[in-house]
Amino acid sequence: MLTRRELATYFSRIRRATEDICQPLAIEDYVVQPILDVSPPKWHLGHTSWFYEALFLEPMRPDYRPFHPRYSYLFNSYYDSFGSRVERQRRGTLSRPTVEEVFAYRRHVDEQMLQLIEQVPEAQWEAFSNQLVLALNHEQQHQELLVTDLKFILGSNPLQPAYAPDRPLPAGWERRDVGEARWIEFPETVAEIGYRGSGFCYDNELPVHRELVGPFRLRNRLVTNGEFVAFIEDGGYRDFRFWLSDGWELVQRESWTAPLYWKNLDGEWYEYTLYGLKKLNPAAPVVHVTFYEAAAYAEWAGKRLPTEAEWELAARSVGQEAANGHFWEDGILHPLPVKGAEEGALLQMLGDAWEWTQSAYLPYPGYRRLPGPLGEYNGKFMVNQKVLRGGSLATPRDHIRISYRNFFQPEKNWQFTGFRLAESL
Amino acid sequence: MLTRRELATYFSRIRRATEDICQPLAIEDYVVQPILDVSPPKWHLGHTSWFYEALFLEPMRPDYRPFHPRYSYLFNSYYDSFGSRVERQRRGTLSRPTVEEVFAYRRHVDEQMLQLIEQVPEAQWEAFSNQLVLALNHEQQHQELLVTDLKFILGSNPLQPAYAPDRPLPAGWERRDVGEARWIEFPETVAEIGYRGSGFCYDNELPVHRELVGPFRLRNRLVTNGEFVAFIEDGGYRDFRFWLSDGWELVQRESWTAPLYWKNLDGEWYEYTLYGLKKLNPAAPVVHVTFYEAAAYAEWAGKRLPTEAEWELAARSVGQEAANGHFWEDGILHPLPVKGAEEGALLQMLGDAWEWTQSAYLPYPGYRRLPGPLGEYNGKFMVNQKVLRGGSLATPRDHIRISYRNFFQPEKNWQFTGFRLAESL
Amino acid sequence: MLTRRELATYFSRIRRATEDICQPLAIEDYVVQPILDVSPPKWHLGHTSWFYEALFLEPMRPDYRPFHPRYSYLFNSYYDSFGSRVERQRRGTLSRPTVEEVFAYRRHVDEQMLQLIEQVPEAQWEAFSNQLVLALNHEQQHQELLVTDLKFILGSNPLQPAYAPDRPLPAGWERRDVGEARWIEFPETVAEIGYRGSGFCYDNELPVHRELVGPFRLRNRLVTNGEFVAFIEDGGYRDFRFWLSDGWELVQRESWTAPLYWKNLDGEWYEYTLYGLKKLNPAAPVVHVTFYEAAAYAEWAGKRLPTEAEWELAARSVGQEAANGHFWEDGILHPLPVKGAEEGALLQMLGDAWEWTQSAYLPYPGYRRLPGPLGEYNGKFMVNQKVLRGGSLATPRDHIRISYRNFFQPEKNWQFTGFRLAESL
Amino acid sequence: MLTRRELATYFSRIRRATEDICQPLAIEDYVVQPILDVSPPKWHLGHTSWFYEALFLEPMRPDYRPFHPRYSYLFNSYYDSFGSRVERQRRGTLSRPTVEEVFAYRRHVDEQMLQLIEQVPEAQWEAFSNQLVLALNHEQQHQELLVTDLKFILGSNPLQPAYAPDRPLPAGWERRDVGEARWIEFPETVAEIGYRGSGFCYDNELPVHRELVGPFRLRNRLVTNGEFVAFIEDGGYRDFRFWLSDGWELVQRESWTAPLYWKNLDGEWYEYTLYGLKKLNPAAPVVHVTFYEAAAYAEWAGKRLPTEAEWELAARSVGQEAANGHFWEDGILHPLPVKGAEEGALLQMLGDAWEWTQSAYLPYPGYRRLPGPLGEYNGKFMVNQKVLRGGSLATPRDHIRISYRNFFQPEKNWQFTGFRLAESL
Repeated sequence: MLTRRELATYFSRIRRATEDICQPLAIEDYVVQPILDVSPPKWHLGHTSWFYEALFLEPMRPDYRPFHPRYSYLFNSYYDSFGSRVERQRRGTLSRPTVEEVFAYRRHVDEQMLQLIEQVPEAQWEAFSNQLVLALNHEQQHQELLVTDLKFILGSNPLQPAYAPDRPLPAGWERRDVGEARWIEFPETVAEIGYRGSGFCYDNELPVHRELVGPFRLRNRLVTNGEFVAFIEDGGYRDFRFWLSDGWELVQRESWTAPLYWKNLDGEWYEYTLYGLKKLNPAAPVVHVTFYEAAAYAEWAGKRLPTEAEWELAARSVGQEAANGHFWEDGILHPLPVKGAEEGALLQMLGDAWEWTQSAYLPYPGYRRLPGPLGEYNGKFMVNQKVLRGGSLATPRDHIRISYRNFFQPEKNWQFTGFRLAESL
Repeated sequence: MLTRRELATYFSRIRRATEDICQPLAIEDYVVQPILDVSPPKWHLGHTSWFYEALFLEPMRPDYRPFHPRYSYLFNSYYDSFGSRVERQRRGTLSRPTVEEVFAYRRHVDEQMLQLIEQVPEAQWEAFSNQLVLALNHEQQHQELLVTDLKFILGSNPLQPAYAPDRPLPAGWERRDVGEARWIEFPETVAEIGYRGSGFCYDNELPVHRELVGPFRLRNRLVTNGEFVAFIEDGGYRDFRFWLSDGWELVQRESWTAPLYWKNLDGEWYEYTLYGLKKLNPAAPVVHVTFYEAAAYAEWAGKRLPTEAEWELAARSVGQEAANGHFWEDGILHPLPVKGAEEGALLQMLGDAWEWTQSAYLPYPGYRRLPGPLGEYNGKFMVNQKVLRGGSLATPRDHIRISYRNFFQPEKNWQFTGFRLAESL
Repeated sequence: MLTRRELATYFSRIRRATEDICQPLAIEDYVVQPILDVSPPKWHLGHTSWFYEALFLEPMRPDYRPFHPRYSYLFNSYYDSFGSRVERQRRGTLSRPTVEEVFAYRRHVDEQMLQLIEQVPEAQWEAFSNQLVLALNHEQQHQELLVTDLKFILGSNPLQPAYAPDRPLPAGWERRDVGEARWIEFPETVAEIGYRGSGFCYDNELPVHRELVGPFRLRNRLVTNGEFVAFIEDGGYRDFRFWLSDGWELVQRESWTAPLYWKNLDGEWYEYTLYGLKKLNPAAPVVHVTFYEAAAYAEWAGKRLPTEAEWELAARSVGQEAANGHFWEDGILHPLPVKGAEEGALLQMLGDAWEWTQSAYLPYPGYRRLPGPLGEYNGKFMVNQKVLRGGSLATPRDHIRISYRNFFQPEKNWQFTGFRLAESL
Repeated sequence: MLTRRELATYFSRIRRATEDICQPLAIEDYVVQPILDVSPPKWHLGHTSWFYEALFLEPMRPDYRPFHPRYSYLFNSYYDSFGSRVERQRRGTLSRPTVEEVFAYRRHVDEQMLQLIEQVPEAQWEAFSNQLVLALNHEQQHQELLVTDLKFILGSNPLQPAYAPDRPLPAGWERRDVGEARWIEFPETVAEIGYRGSGFCYDNELPVHRELVGPFRLRNRLVTNGEFVAFIEDGGYRDFRFWLSDGWELVQRESWTAPLYWKNLDGEWYEYTLYGLKKLNPAAPVVHVTFYEAAAYAEWAGKRLPTEAEWELAARSVGQEAANGHFWEDGILHPLPVKGAEEGALLQMLGDAWEWTQSAYLPYPGYRRLPGPLGEYNGKFMVNQKVLRGGSLATPRDHIRISYRNFFQPEKNWQFTGFRLAESL
């Protein structure tokens, strides 16, 4: 269990990290919502502050008066437990509160929370501490969303501005060849699935349970841009046979021809990155694909996507080494090609890009929603979504775990989403 | 393997059964499409005939000229392999061909197919026979859709006409009490899942594979109308805590307050049935619920829906006895309460109502789509849908199997869809 | 004032004429609604019967019981005065009542109305008679809608069936040249506008009022298909400069390239007509154009559309001779080219095709809505619509007048709508 | 004709006035687009600068390079003549260029234009000067839109911030009684309609032409909030009989119960104004009503709206005195009640609130679109809109004229739109 001091330090670190992400932004960048999924950065800043007000300050301090009486209405995301709220599609229509006011709100909440950390009665410490760790993990999820949302805000702008124009390209950017992917084989086993440690995990990673996983093999790395170009050039976006029916409908209705952020200029592929518009690197992993595109590629390649149990089993087989990818703290703004020397090992499992699995997002056997408002956190989304595993370069390093289950609808592509191939044996 | 004679008899029986369903209809009933999901009956009659033209007559008889050059365009459902087609939402806008012309089309196809059954070269017999059995199962699926579609056509009409006004209510209709549901327990086991017989099954029931199923218990019968009324009266449709998020959005957007076909007249519940509008029978199984409603009920009851593996395991445990429900051949147009004497046994597993499971519709390990046009039959739908098991009273008795996997989107409710509760041990 | 006998004869004639239009239909043709504007023929048959029930039988006969308690709900079009009704877009989803039942409804209403005509007290005769004449004119409007709706039902069907396959093409169909259109000039004048006779007219043709009409000239005939092809070939549908902004948006959103019912097969223009698909006749008037297309053509030609006052002034200048076009009773199913001999005169003013004017549909000075339900007949539509003048070949001859004001939204094109050019002097 | 110096001064004055409106805004307020009609203030600032680039700098200075190559794409409103552009609904999704960059753009354009004013060859001066005056009037139109758009931006925000929180309420705000409205009568006349002066006017105010206007009377002032409350309390929003059909559909679909910006808190009416949320003043004119609401009120009152010819005739009868209302320069942010002393005269004709007329926005006899890009300015909108007359308090005083024709769709209400009653004699 964390001490008060440790928790205060942890709290302050996470809070600061959120604000650090926003540092390169112009005021205007905080405000807009180009698509429903993308929230204005100032909304994220307000929402992650409201979360502490709603879950800690208001219930635990009888005398607490909210910073502003309407902020709960403005910054509640989807918690019916906390009453009505601004419709999601209207988040980007609100110029007020200003960014400065939202930062003032953050500072207020920071101060109040640090006081609360000191004052919580000993008897409540464990429950309080556990819930606050969850809330900090919640804020880390919004850190990743901040990154991907501002990428969309900038990348969908006709001016295509870079996120941090002064940031130099990272070492490894120039690699153009990663060689063939290799298979790594796994025999049939009864795997223990779910979080088995003593630290924090989400309720959806529990209960630990056994699952029979048949023999399979898994690619040692993510599918690359170059490999995906081959799919495109082979008519991948024009042949219904590779696609799930729902995906094919979207391909046609929305005229898909390439992943999000790709542009073909005079026959050459470019990709908008947080560094600005760049020539597509064939050796880098393909990112910002939907599940449908990942599944269509796999069908075209005669393979399939892994299940989440297979992925977890494979990652666990290498243990801590799975974390050989890049995370947000590494300061790298776009996934890099793997190094040649890394061949043979299981690469890019944690970090770099979330990996679409073929698994639907469903409760583990014995799962029950948490009581109270946090029951709305994960459980109510367990339908119509696919599981993604492994985190991305926009994920904070201490936020990810092998057992971590992310989930999105199969048509979403504004996260750093990639995939690797699998095959049954 | 079937003989030519057996197959010809089988073919004729299935073809006749389709037409028998339509016998009570007025010409006008064949034409309309009140919602996207519901096809006009004459479209079903045409489509099930086109299916033989496209899969047998055209590829196997070089001299064959289609009955009408535009019928493939009109009666292709979703097979991209066979080219363009009328948009689904326009099926109900087409007054021509007339019903009489569609029946002439059926007779033509019948004659041609019966000739073909006689003339197929011996060497091709096995492949032909297998594919024709699949096509006849396809037609049986449309028989069930015919029943549910015409129920919607009549039931959504303000005049609420009965399907077969002269048909008397069946014995058992008057039962009003079925007692408490009982639990039946199952220990942990490694189950073999999938079709293991030598007859026909769909590709999605294969490959047979082993799955670790933890200990659970299952209710001996379906949830009843009376039990569902208790959920409604306890505010089930007004409390977000019971609902999946996507379901709650629909509840609010579409103002759901009860299952499809229910009407509250002066405080009393009525239900439109194929016999016309009737007082709700509290002892009969609740039907025409969405997955969302089934899941919300289960959450309210502190239970859950079974997985498809649990369901299959349980059904297999009683073997042929699972088929103790009602099927279309029984001539019963609405599910009946179980008999008191049946208590204790596993009831209503096959027949009566399709049962929503908590399982997503996904490929079994090792599944590959069929080559050719039939690859579009099942595989391309394996996303965003839930598995239903067991068949309903609108299912032909010889069409259902314990391993049979039906699938619909979680918001669909125009099939005879019910559910039973489960619980992990 | 009409005698009872005259009115009974008149009533029976109109009622029969409605049914005559339906004579070539298959039962299925009575049922469908391919677009919102097009009502199923059986709905027209029911609605025109309900109209007498609602306006005469129910208010005037205290003992009258409606033929069916739900028919008012089913067959009310837009009269809020008569309560709730089936949503317009659902008219084509209703298979019941059957066509036979609707005809029985008609016969019932016919009998009751004929009785009522005999029995109305003398003191009420004038008011009754006037209102019944209005109701018969209402039915004539639905006769025209029946023709245009069934044209759309057949013409939007991929099989493109003819309305009356046995009907021979009319004399004059083969004419291919009509020569140049001529101008007819009109000096400035203060015109009396509105209906000045002693017979029936709609409230929107009143009050008669004076209007200052500046000097102008008007083409002697309608714009032809051949002239419209020149517009198309000159890039008319691709050049925004000819279009009103709202029209240009539709051109782009809906990819307009030609009038409704036109098809280009291998470089040759065809047009669906009630005779079936036919080669486009360059000498026949262009019909089924929207106001936007008519206005764009005029802009391209450097001319404009006439105002309704100009049109009325011009028509009145030739008096009864204006009626030299074709009407429904002439049995001609598609507009014919004018005869060469007719050149110089003002042709095609009444009959053949409705003519879009540049005038908005607005009340005449001093106009007041009628009291009671008939106040909903015309007045509530006086916004967002354009006036059309002159009637078409689908109009009954005794229904049209020089002062007659038809009105549709500028994007409608399923009526026989054409136009002629005008110019200020 | 203006001298170079006069034009330069005029240009600078107008440019500054635009920026003055924005002075109280936070950066965030410049960015959002809460509804399609409302553009982000920074878009207005950019668009009004691009307009000079597109119409003057680029065509007249061969060496001119646009300030930024993509700004034409970003800031073109609806001119197809100038190529493709950001879709209107995406204006509020663009965080870049920043507000600072847009102001830099303005300064650049200002400098270039002032140079151009000095350098235009004498021979082109008249044409140049005339077109620039039009462009400055264009900018003034955007000044009014800036005011109404930022009112919507602030007024639709749940925090309901005032536009200029330090601005005191104006004298006259406290008046609560304006007495009965009076009629002013006008005999039949042939009026000259259109702009007859020698200064600037828009093409849609021409040609001057004669129109026969029948005898009528007009209210001496605008309908007040108090009068409109009486309509509401009499069930005005619940009785279809007062409404045009299209309006009634909106009332029901969007649940209208009061004008835009009205709120009923505990039985008391409040109104959001640029001063913040205030108690409704019954003596002030009702503003922010749609044409439908104005027409429904008039129908309820047994009167009608004036035609634009009647309005112009009446205004011309008092000449310059018509300008006795308030304009933007007066610094009053919400319409005031008329003073008791003013009774009897024709009040609030110019200024205070735009007045809906019953007239459709149509070309005057003999109107032709301007050649070139300015042909898109007015002519292409002459369908589906209603004429408004007289300007509002958000209109610059030197922008309005008696002959000025404003136009909006009948459902728009975010301008300061009111109305007065008329009646035929």
